[in-house]
Amino acid sequence: MVERTTYAGLVNESYLNQKVTLFGWVDRRRDLGKLIFIDLRDREGIVQLAFNEDRSKEAFSIAKEVRNEYVIKVVGEVVKRAEGQENHDIKSGNVEVNVEEATILNTSEPLPFEIRDDADVNEDLLLKYRYLELRRPSMQRGLRLRSTITRAVREFYDNNGFLDIETPDLAKSTPEGARDYLVPSRVSKGHFYALPQSPQQYKQLLMGGGFDRYYQIARCFRDEDLRGDRQPEFTQIDVETTFLSQHDIMDLTEGMLKNVMKKALNKDIETPFPRISWQESMDRFGTDQPDARFAMEIQDVTEIIKGANIAAPAFEDSEHEILARAIVAEGAADKYSRKDIEAKEQYLERYGVKRLVWAKVEADGFSGSSAKLLTPVYKELTDRLEAKEGDIIFMVFDRFKVVSDSLGSLRVNLANELNMIPEDVYKFLWVIDWPLFEYDEGDQRWVAAHHPFTAPNEGDEHYLDEGEDPHKAHAQSYDIILNGLELGGGSIRIHNAELQEKMFRALGFTKESAYEQFGYFINALKFGFPPHGGIALGLDRFARLLAGADNIREVIAFPKNSKAIEPMTQAPAEVSEEQLKELGIKLDLDPEINE
Amino acid sequence: MVERTTYAGLVNESYLNQKVTLFGWVDRRRDLGKLIFIDLRDREGIVQLAFNEDRSKEAFSIAKEVRNEYVIKVVGEVVKRAEGQENHDIKSGNVEVNVEEATILNTSEPLPFEIRDDADVNEDLLLKYRYLELRRPSMQRGLRLRSTITRAVREFYDNNGFLDIETPDLAKSTPEGARDYLVPSRVSKGHFYALPQSPQQYKQLLMGGGFDRYYQIARCFRDEDLRGDRQPEFTQIDVETTFLSQHDIMDLTEGMLKNVMKKALNKDIETPFPRISWQESMDRFGTDQPDARFAMEIQDVTEIIKGANIAAPAFEDSEHEILARAIVAEGAADKYSRKDIEAKEQYLERYGVKRLVWAKVEADGFSGSSAKLLTPVYKELTDRLEAKEGDIIFMVFDRFKVVSDSLGSLRVNLANELNMIPEDVYKFLWVIDWPLFEYDEGDQRWVAAHHPFTAPNEGDEHYLDEGEDPHKAHAQSYDIILNGLELGGGSIRIHNAELQEKMFRALGFTKESAYEQFGYFINALKFGFPPHGGIALGLDRFARLLAGADNIREVIAFPKNSKAIEPMTQAPAEVSEEQLKELGIKLDLDPEINE
Repeated sequence: MVERTTYAGLVNESYLNQKVTLFGWVDRRRDLGKLIFIDLRDREGIVQLAFNEDRSKEAFSIAKEVRNEYVIKVVGEVVKRAEGQENHDIKSGNVEVNVEEATILNTSEPLPFEIRDDADVNEDLLLKYRYLELRRPSMQRGLRLRSTITRAVREFYDNNGFLDIETPDLAKSTPEGARDYLVPSRVSKGHFYALPQSPQQYKQLLMGGGFDRYYQIARCFRDEDLRGDRQPEFTQIDVETTFLSQHDIMDLTEGMLKNVMKKALNKDIETPFPRISWQESMDRFGTDQPDARFAMEIQDVTEIIKGANIAAPAFEDSEHEILARAIVAEGAADKYSRKDIEAKEQYLERYGVKRLVWAKVEADGFSGSSAKLLTPVYKELTDRLEAKEGDIIFMVFDRFKVVSDSLGSLRVNLANELNMIPEDVYKFLWVIDWPLFEYDEGDQRWVAAHHPFTAPNEGDEHYLDEGEDPHKAHAQSYDIILNGLELGGGSIRIHNAELQEKMFRALGFTKESAYEQFGYFINALKFGFPPHGGIALGLDRFARLLAGADNIREVIAFPKNSKAIEPMTQAPAEVSEEQLKELGIKLDLDPEINE
Repeated sequence: MVERTTYAGLVNESYLNQKVTLFGWVDRRRDLGKLIFIDLRDREGIVQLAFNEDRSKEAFSIAKEVRNEYVIKVVGEVVKRAEGQENHDIKSGNVEVNVEEATILNTSEPLPFEIRDDADVNEDLLLKYRYLELRRPSMQRGLRLRSTITRAVREFYDNNGFLDIETPDLAKSTPEGARDYLVPSRVSKGHFYALPQSPQQYKQLLMGGGFDRYYQIARCFRDEDLRGDRQPEFTQIDVETTFLSQHDIMDLTEGMLKNVMKKALNKDIETPFPRISWQESMDRFGTDQPDARFAMEIQDVTEIIKGANIAAPAFEDSEHEILARAIVAEGAADKYSRKDIEAKEQYLERYGVKRLVWAKVEADGFSGSSAKLLTPVYKELTDRLEAKEGDIIFMVFDRFKVVSDSLGSLRVNLANELNMIPEDVYKFLWVIDWPLFEYDEGDQRWVAAHHPFTAPNEGDEHYLDEGEDPHKAHAQSYDIILNGLELGGGSIRIHNAELQEKMFRALGFTKESAYEQFGYFINALKFGFPPHGGIALGLDRFARLLAGADNIREVIAFPKNSKAIEPMTQAPAEVSEEQLKELGIKLDLDPEINE
């Protein structure tokens, strides 16, 4: 028989004049002499307890004794608060509990920090006492929201014929992609498992196994340097299907997202989401993760600028096509001084911008640093851009990548400063029709834009033939973007062994090296492997966005710090010689650095 | 627009005279000259396709070309099968599809083995081509059932206020318990994460964090030698709650199991389940995992045997109390020869049995090897045991452990041989009130019967005080048993730092060594930690039992073999020197053994 009548935070007028049994934490205690008030807290919120010596001497003496974060059980009657004493900030604010019996279930030492969202505490201290930080309202909210999201995701897939199938965490290391976490094998000494960066191969093999519709909320691992949105282990909503087109898969994903938005935030979102090509996304937003909550899109004015033969030197580049593109900051003229804009120019240097061309629009001409340059095209420019008095026109004349990166970044920067981004709005969209390959400037080689199992567009397969240029191929892949951040992506996969071999060749593998690493998989495609495709979405980031949290730590129960350490348990830790010996490994530390 | 009308296996009379589009695998092909029949298979089953040259030359030529496991798409009309041609073994057996269009989506090389449950194939070959084995009906059934179970588990907890919260996989190594899988850290060289053997500490800390009700379907890892029911990674249904008694938690668990049995097998099971003490379980069934599907319980006859002063030498043991206990195999007299029974005696030697005392019951006396010994107590014995003509009485005179182990094992062995175990019956029960400690005969030391966080029974706490005998304490712990196998177990936990310290002391820790390993956790108990408790159930075994499968591999998509190797991907594998160098480790292999 469960003793608790309800959660403290859920006590309300429906319990009036009833006797209730409550459990929770002492959140705050006010001693008024003959009367003591205690705010009793649990995961649902707070209720006010009133202790009165006349009502119960024993309970009153308990109330005298307790301190913050003591755990108590109380029995008492729910009564209306005196008029004027209501607290409209909490759900239980119209009532209080006249306590008749009280028991201390556990005491608490003074806390290292307060259980308040706004207490300013060093991050490692918070993580060391994570169980205390978890009592904060924001953490309670964040993890509950995440649980609701997870449930809504599962509900959708469960109700649409998807099977929840688990794939291994002790998997095979693949040199492609990010760095693996390795797990030494004790049985096969000298051999290592790798923790999966994603269940990509396994989920495809499940399609080969005939399961048709798979989903899993899957733990994944990447041993990369940490950033704000990145943890060594992360969770993805992982989906794979057979016999569907990319648009079918996008439709299904929209259904799932619609269900999540409804269940998690009670928001009705419209489907289908816009589906724009990668090229269009770059042209309009300067990025493949466009924030569509506001306009201020990039516009091409190459014809006008080039035609007027102004700024001719900028167009003298034999190697690249040079573009002139612009964004118009509406009504921003009086908000930015010349100095402000020069600071922006400096900021944009990181994208390779040599000169930020800009002008404030006046009734009959331009003002600002490029006014003179642009005056000859005043009418054409303002007409084309629909720019009017009081706007600022920002332009970059450069090759595609520089123009896109810089104006894309400037667009978001200006929108933030000009408060153009509406709050509490969720704009989903798809970016489709990606290039199959992209050039990795760091490694100086072509890599798969998504991964090596992505199918080229129908009709683009021939680009992978010997003698053709594979980098012209586009892919049946699609990224889902929410408010300017990539939530995830997917693709139709290659299901044909021959095409898969060609794909590896285009990525620089020899037939031998491809088979050495992926032979089991290429061979699988030879045994009646069905056409298939899927998607993966990052759950941590999605939950963070819906929680409106700045940091992913607010939706992860026990995160690591920026050094991949968990300050609470002090993992990772040293282990015994004996443990290593059993695994057939020993330490190999650089004595100068590590000891 | 999803092209498929429905799954092949779901085509039935409701589609009569309709045109359908189907996708699937060629399961079987019969070429009758002018007519070709193909069994088209997908995850829902099989439908018969009929190809006729007159109907479509193109489709017919495709039907000529395809071989087993080709993937095809067909469009055709659903028609009734000719009378007498129905196949009652399949859901679609009353209809067939007259194919008008057919497309080959992928071909297949000849398979290494057949897609039939009864094909006799070497296990490693099956695992190497696991994606093909997964196409077998038994594997499709097993993984679908598991998905249904998982869903029913979640449904119950979601609807009862539990939050699904993820805990880390990169955790801290603890020398207690089984061997950890280790993960070297690249950032903190010389330090290692451990993959969790269970989320035990984390889920308790979530209770400290105020989440009240937690569940997770959690991946766990143990680097132990593998047995039939054991994989290096396994999955448990993991639950923790605050402010509940052990019986509350058992009630909740029963609610979950009831939901699973209904949703997975459409079985209504009765709750509450029997809750018997560990002592009663040992006395009645000789084991702490009793199979209650059949009776033949162990009965104590010490008084009778000892009182009659027969078999006196067996009772001469100064160190242990000697018991005489019996089981009665009803109507088994003519099924077991003296030789059969001698074989059993030999088998029971492993439990320390020196002599199996047995007798067949005749109308007016005993026959068999111990007849003479037992004749003086014929009436008392047969009365007490309710044994009648044609039964066999088996007895062991020895100390508690030997009597229990041997008769417990014999009981199950006889029940199997005598077909006493009903099929398709699911008997759940709880074993409660366990000893807090048990003696580990291997390590020759007292260990926690469950784990070091288990709370003693109310009133038994004082046994942990200095100077008292902690091994007299019983625990607030409970195991859930299904058909003679432990599904899982749980306990009320210690929530008081002082008691937790005493517990570690009883386990042989010094205060220093306890804090060194578990300090963060003991300290957490000092900050208003609530009373709490939970349970964990093994999902793999549970799914195996409900699937009626002999091997756990039938409910795991990509299992490892008995050497912890995945033959398909060949994980674990060798990795590069460079990878190890980055992790600050190197191989340390015994050259004679490993190279």
